[in-house]
Amino acid sequence: MLVIKVGGGKELDIDAIVADIVALRQAEQALILVHGGAETTNEVAEALGHPPQFITSESGYESRRTDRRALEIFEMVYCGQINKMWVEKLQQAGVDAVGMSGLDGRIFEGKRKDKLRVRVNGRRLVLRDDWTGTVERVNTDLLRLLLDAGYLPVLTPPGASDSGEAINVDGDRAAAMVAAAFQAEALVILSNVPGLLRNFPDESTLIREIPRTRADDFMQFAAGRMKKKVMGAVEAVAAGVRQVIFADGRVEHPIRRALDGQGTQIG
Amino acid sequence: MLVIKVGGGKELDIDAIVADIVALRQAEQALILVHGGAETTNEVAEALGHPPQFITSESGYESRRTDRRALEIFEMVYCGQINKMWVEKLQQAGVDAVGMSGLDGRIFEGKRKDKLRVRVNGRRLVLRDDWTGTVERVNTDLLRLLLDAGYLPVLTPPGASDSGEAINVDGDRAAAMVAAAFQAEALVILSNVPGLLRNFPDESTLIREIPRTRADDFMQFAAGRMKKKVMGAVEAVAAGVRQVIFADGRVEHPIRRALDGQGTQIG
Repeated sequence: MLVIKVGGGKELDIDAIVADIVALRQAEQALILVHGGAETTNEVAEALGHPPQFITSESGYESRRTDRRALEIFEMVYCGQINKMWVEKLQQAGVDAVGMSGLDGRIFEGKRKDKLRVRVNGRRLVLRDDWTGTVERVNTDLLRLLLDAGYLPVLTPPGASDSGEAINVDGDRAAAMVAAAFQAEALVILSNVPGLLRNFPDESTLIREIPRTRADDFMQFAAGRMKKKVMGAVEAVAAGVRQVIFADGRVEHPIRRALDGQGTQIG
Repeated sequence: MLVIKVGGGKELDIDAIVADIVALRQAEQALILVHGGAETTNEVAEALGHPPQFITSESGYESRRTDRRALEIFEMVYCGQINKMWVEKLQQAGVDAVGMSGLDGRIFEGKRKDKLRVRVNGRRLVLRDDWTGTVERVNTDLLRLLLDAGYLPVLTPPGASDSGEAINVDGDRAAAMVAAAFQAEALVILSNVPGLLRNFPDESTLIREIPRTRADDFMQFAAGRMKKKVMGAVEAVAAGVRQVIFADGRVEHPIRRALDGQGTQIG
């Protein structure tokens, strides 16, 4: 099993990613696609008069403030606009894609953080009207059912809480959980950088290899949204995924290059 | 098999519909839910600066002008906001719902009208940049796979063209095709009217029964969006669906009432 995670950034070469997926499926490689959509969500939230807000957890991670209206806009973009864009591109290329969120069939299931302890401008706050959580279980039965019937699952946040609420979950960590659940050969995380950079955004400082035993040490080089990607990678290798690759999604043959050794290879 | 179609109108009693679905599933009734979203799509399109436009075909049917941006907004609302709202409500009520569009796995497949002959203010026009079509086939294999595994499919437009493009298809007629494909006992179409009215909007003029052989004659009473609902009903009974019921989705036990003989019963 190969799990491909694509960001929501606009610089990604979507047609190149689709072409690689077609080739991999022709070679009978089992795969699952997981995508994000943060950039477009910010724009749509702005346009709909509910601008994005970000909060910092006490442990220093930044995440989207997800009240009910933000959740609705999140679902519009992730599950509507972007999920169906991927499914349409894949269907047009002859891949029988089925797009679902982590809420559907509880594919990504976990706990809602019903009290979110955060810092806003240095002040401590407890938010109770936030729909955010962490994936703890993956519904591999449903995914296997689809894979065995020849479909390509195209997955996206949100996930489902234990009580069935929609929760905003991190897409990179969700992809890591999927890879772990299937004991995947590789999790390929494509974004608009060539990999993990020692001095972000200087692309000449690409870190080429990270031994699995030392993945934790490299957290120091992860800036901004890269933090959760590295956290997902650390979790994935700890859970038995053979290899996690951060690679460039803006180039020709982005998946093939990643599998051929480009980008940052962890494992 | 029971196919339930719910409109996208805001007056629907969603919790009452969910409660009836829970009861039907407990009674081991096989069912599929299909929903719309036109009203909210109009609002979001307006808010995003791409106001809805409607066109009239040469045969007199009104439909949404669906250029690429309108299609994207359509997908945001139907597949994102409204589909996930239904899935979340159902998951919270203990129903393992899986939301998909007709594009996913080509559940609703048909022809894109690549040249759309329309009248705009009396003038004839041919539109070539419109993504509209009609459902001709239903992927019952994928739906059966999910049903047999205990999931409730929650379906919504768009559909897929033969070449995999997303196409705006009418939700009522798509639901009729699903009911026909499964030779359903009943197709229940819930909206914000008590059924087909002889003098719309006078609710005291409800038509209680339409014999299947005379369904065509009743087209004259269908105003506006009701036209396609009646057309779907005519197609469904012709294709072997035992009964089509137009019923009120704003009341307690809307599905049970419909099955107990309320609304307009065709068949």
